[in-house]
Amino acid sequence: MTRALIPGSFDPVTNGHIDIIERASRMFDHILVAVARNSSKTPLFTVQERIGMLEEVCAPHPNVTVETFDGLLVEYAVRYEASVIVKGLRFVSDFEYELQMALMNRRLNSAIETVFLMTGTEYSDLSSSIVKEIARLGGAVEGMVPAIVQQRLREKYDPS
Amino acid sequence: MTRALIPGSFDPVTNGHIDIIERASRMFDHILVAVARNSSKTPLFTVQERIGMLEEVCAPHPNVTVETFDGLLVEYAVRYEASVIVKGLRFVSDFEYELQMALMNRRLNSAIETVFLMTGTEYSDLSSSIVKEIARLGGAVEGMVPAIVQQRLREKYDPS
Amino acid sequence: MTRALIPGSFDPVTNGHIDIIERASRMFDHILVAVARNSSKTPLFTVQERIGMLEEVCAPHPNVTVETFDGLLVEYAVRYEASVIVKGLRFVSDFEYELQMALMNRRLNSAIETVFLMTGTEYSDLSSSIVKEIARLGGAVEGMVPAIVQQRLREKYDPS
Amino acid sequence: MTRALIPGSFDPVTNGHIDIIERASRMFDHILVAVARNSSKTPLFTVQERIGMLEEVCAPHPNVTVETFDGLLVEYAVRYEASVIVKGLRFVSDFEYELQMALMNRRLNSAIETVFLMTGTEYSDLSSSIVKEIARLGGAVEGMVPAIVQQRLREKYDPS
Amino acid sequence: MTRALIPGSFDPVTNGHIDIIERASRMFDHILVAVARNSSKTPLFTVQERIGMLEEVCAPHPNVTVETFDGLLVEYAVRYEASVIVKGLRFVSDFEYELQMALMNRRLNSAIETVFLMTGTEYSDLSSSIVKEIARLGGAVEGMVPAIVQQRLREKYDPS
Amino acid sequence: MTRALIPGSFDPVTNGHIDIIERASRMFDHILVAVARNSSKTPLFTVQERIGMLEEVCAPHPNVTVETFDGLLVEYAVRYEASVIVKGLRFVSDFEYELQMALMNRRLNSAIETVFLMTGTEYSDLSSSIVKEIARLGGAVEGMVPAIVQQRLREKYDPS
Repeated sequence: MTRALIPGSFDPVTNGHIDIIERASRMFDHILVAVARNSSKTPLFTVQERIGMLEEVCAPHPNVTVETFDGLLVEYAVRYEASVIVKGLRFVSDFEYELQMALMNRRLNSAIETVFLMTGTEYSDLSSSIVKEIARLGGAVEGMVPAIVQQRLREKYDPS
Repeated sequence: MTRALIPGSFDPVTNGHIDIIERASRMFDHILVAVARNSSKTPLFTVQERIGMLEEVCAPHPNVTVETFDGLLVEYAVRYEASVIVKGLRFVSDFEYELQMALMNRRLNSAIETVFLMTGTEYSDLSSSIVKEIARLGGAVEGMVPAIVQQRLREKYDPS
Repeated sequence: MTRALIPGSFDPVTNGHIDIIERASRMFDHILVAVARNSSKTPLFTVQERIGMLEEVCAPHPNVTVETFDGLLVEYAVRYEASVIVKGLRFVSDFEYELQMALMNRRLNSAIETVFLMTGTEYSDLSSSIVKEIARLGGAVEGMVPAIVQQRLREKYDPS
Repeated sequence: MTRALIPGSFDPVTNGHIDIIERASRMFDHILVAVARNSSKTPLFTVQERIGMLEEVCAPHPNVTVETFDGLLVEYAVRYEASVIVKGLRFVSDFEYELQMALMNRRLNSAIETVFLMTGTEYSDLSSSIVKEIARLGGAVEGMVPAIVQQRLREKYDPS
Repeated sequence: MTRALIPGSFDPVTNGHIDIIERASRMFDHILVAVARNSSKTPLFTVQERIGMLEEVCAPHPNVTVETFDGLLVEYAVRYEASVIVKGLRFVSDFEYELQMALMNRRLNSAIETVFLMTGTEYSDLSSSIVKEIARLGGAVEGMVPAIVQQRLREKYDPS
Repeated sequence: MTRALIPGSFDPVTNGHIDIIERASRMFDHILVAVARNSSKTPLFTVQERIGMLEEVCAPHPNVTVETFDGLLVEYAVRYEASVIVKGLRFVSDFEYELQMALMNRRLNSAIETVFLMTGTEYSDLSSSIVKEIARLGGAVEGMVPAIVQQRLREKYDPS
C-alpha cells in the first residue's frame, strides 16, 4: 500500500489544488492532505478554517484525509507512514523551487520520494494568493475556487 | 493495482534511467519499461540489444518487465492496462518538453496520468547521447552506465 | 494604420495559430499571414496547400490576408508596409528563441517591432510537428486543427 | 482605434520603461500609462511624484497620458476603453510571472488582450528597485533614468 | 596577478560556499571573501560571527582572506584591487538574477568582470536559508555545513 | 600560471566570441582558442579557414593562441596544461546545456574547471548560425562579425 502526502498552506484551497488531489487519489492507495501550521506568512484563514474547507471539498474521495503538520515534512511523512510526497507543477519557477525542496527532502530521508504532477492548464494561472488578491479587490472568483471557498472569501472581505 | 509505464529509447540504458526505474518500482505495483521502436533517430543499438541490456539490469526487480512499443503511447498504455506514465526530469528544458508531451497525452486520453521524478543529481549530466559520444571518443564511461552496457559500448566502438 | 505580420511555416495551420491570428486581427488594422517558403525542413504540405488551408480558415476575418515570403523577414515587412511582427509564446523555450529573433530583427531594422501574445493555454501543447506525428500514428487530431486540415492530413497519411 | 494600457508602479520611471512607452506609442493610437496606487510595497515616491515625473518624460508623445488606478486592472481597462495591456519582458522570470497575470486577466475579461514587448537589451539590467538601491548607496544612475528622476533621487537620498 | 572577490551574506557559510571558494582559490592568485554588512534581511549571525566561521573554514587556503563590505560592490572591488567577482550558479533562477547583477556591475565599472562557477551538484539543494530552516526545526545539518557552523547553529536554536 | 581554453566551432567567429576572448585574456595568463575539428554539423568554413580568421582577429592579444582539437576536451586540456575552460552564456537555454557539459567534464577530470562569462548584451542575439543565415539571405552582417569575416562570408555566398 502506498500512502502519499500532499503538503501545502491551502490558504485557501483552489480548484488547482483539488485537481491535483483528485488525480493523486486515483493513483495512490491513500492521500493525506497536510496543512502547514507554522507558515512564515500571516494566513488569511486559520488552520481550522483551512481544514474545514478542505474536508468539505475532499468528502467525495473516501481515500483522502486532511491533517495538519508542523516541523520537518519528512519526519511527518515517516510518522504517518507516507512514502511519497505529491506536488503540482505549473511553471518553470515552480519547478526549480520544488526541485530544490525534493533534493533536500531526499537528502534528509532517501526513503521518501517526491513525485510531480503537471497542473491542468485550465488552472495554471491560479494560486491562493492571486485568488485572495482578486477577492480583496472585489473581483469574481467563480471557477477558481469551490463554492464553499467563494462564500468564505466573501465573509472575510465583504462581511456586511 | 497501479501499473506504470516508463517509455524511452534507452539507446543505451544509463545509470540515470536505472535510478528512475528502481524508484518507480518501489512506488507502483508493476512497472513496464517500454522501448520505443519507431524513433526518428538512427539508434546505435537494435531494439533487441536495448531490451537485452534492460532485462539484465532490471532482473533484480521482480515487478519490472521490459517491452517494446510503437504507435501512440497512450494507446499502448491502454492496451497494457497502465494508468501512469513515469518520466525523469533533470533540467528546465526537459521540463518544458515533457510538460508539452504530458498535456498532449492527457488530451488524447485523460485517464492516463504522467508523473515526474527528479533525476538524482549524481546523474543529471547523463544522457544516452552524451554517453555514446564519450565512448566514441574513447573516454571511460564507468559510473555512467552498468557494466553490461560498458562492455557493449566497447564492442561497438572498439571491436578489435 | 498599423499592419502586422504573422510569419510561420504553418505546415499545417493549427488551432493555436488561428487563436493568435484572430486575436491579432482585433488589435491591428490589417494582418498579413506570411508563409515561409524557404524553410530548411522538408514540409509535409506544399506552400500552395498551406496557403489554401490558411485562406479557408482566415476567410471570416476581412482584415487578414495570406501571402508567402522568402528572404529576410524585415525586408519583406518593409516591402509590405508592415511595422509589427506578431508571435505567439507558449513556453520559456519559445521565449528565448523568439527573444533572440526579435533582437536580431530589431538590429536589422529598428522600425519593425515584434510583439508577443501568449498562446491560449488550451493550445499550449499544440505545434504543427506534434499534430503531424499524431496524425501519422493514426491518432485523432480533432480539436487540434480546423476541419479542413483534419481532412488534408487524412489524405496525406491514410489516402485509401 | 486601439487604446493600450501600460500599468506599473513606476517608483521611479526608468529608461527601460520609457523605451516601452515610446515603442508602444508608435504602435497603438493612444497609450494610457497607469500608475498603481495600492501597491503592497512602501514606495519611495508618492503617486503624485511618480505621475509628475512620468508626465514630464512623456510630454514629447502627444498620444500618451498618465493616470493612476487601483482595483482590478481589467475593470480599469474597461472603464477607460483600453482593449490592450502592454508589458515589457526582460527575462524568463519576468515571462512566467507575466504569463500568469495575462492568463488571469484574460480569464477575468477575455476582451482585454495582453501584448509583450522585449525590453531593449541596453535596459535589461534596469529595474526601479535596483536603481533606487544604487542611488541609496551613492552610485551614479546616469543613463539609467531620465534627468528629472536623477534629480529627484538625489533629493531623496542626499538632500543636503 | 588577478585578485578575485567572492561576495555574499554567508549567514552562515555552507559547504556549497566552501566548494566555490576552494575552486576559485586554485584559479586566481588571491581570493577576498567579502561579507555583506548592510543586507536588507535581518541576519541570524552578526557580521563578526560570520567572519569568524569563514576564517576558520578558509584557514587551510593561504591565498584566501575574509573581509566585510558595505556600499557598492564595484567600488569595494576597486579599493581592494580585485578585478574579478566570482559567483556560484545552481539554478536557472540564480542565473537570471546573477545575470542582471553582472550586467549592472559591468555598467557601473566595465573593468570589473563577473565569472560564474557551477555549484557542485551535491550542493545544489543547499542555501543558507534552507540550512537555517532545517536547524530551526531540529533537523540534522551534517554534511550541509562545516562542523563549526553545526555547533554555532545548535547554540542559536537549542542553547540549553 | 593559469592557462584557459575557449573551445568552439567558430564557424565563423563573431563579435560575441571576440568579446569573450578579449575579456578572458585580461583575466588569465594564457588563452588557447580551440577550434573543434570533428563537429557533427557540416561547417561552412574549413578548419584552416576558421583558424585563419581567428588568428587575424586575435593578433592584437599576445597571450592568445589558436589551435584545433578533436577527441575529448578534457584530455586536450590536460595535454595543453590548461586548467580552466571558459564559456560565454547568453540565455537560459545556453546555461542548461553548458551546465550539463561542465558537470560531465568535471566528472571526467575534476582538475579542469569550467568558468562562465555573460556575453555582453549587445551580442546576445549573435550566433554563428544566425550570422550565416543572414549572410545567405543577402543581409548586412556589419557589426556582427569582424571585417575579415564579412569579406569571407561575401566570398562564400556572393562569389561573383
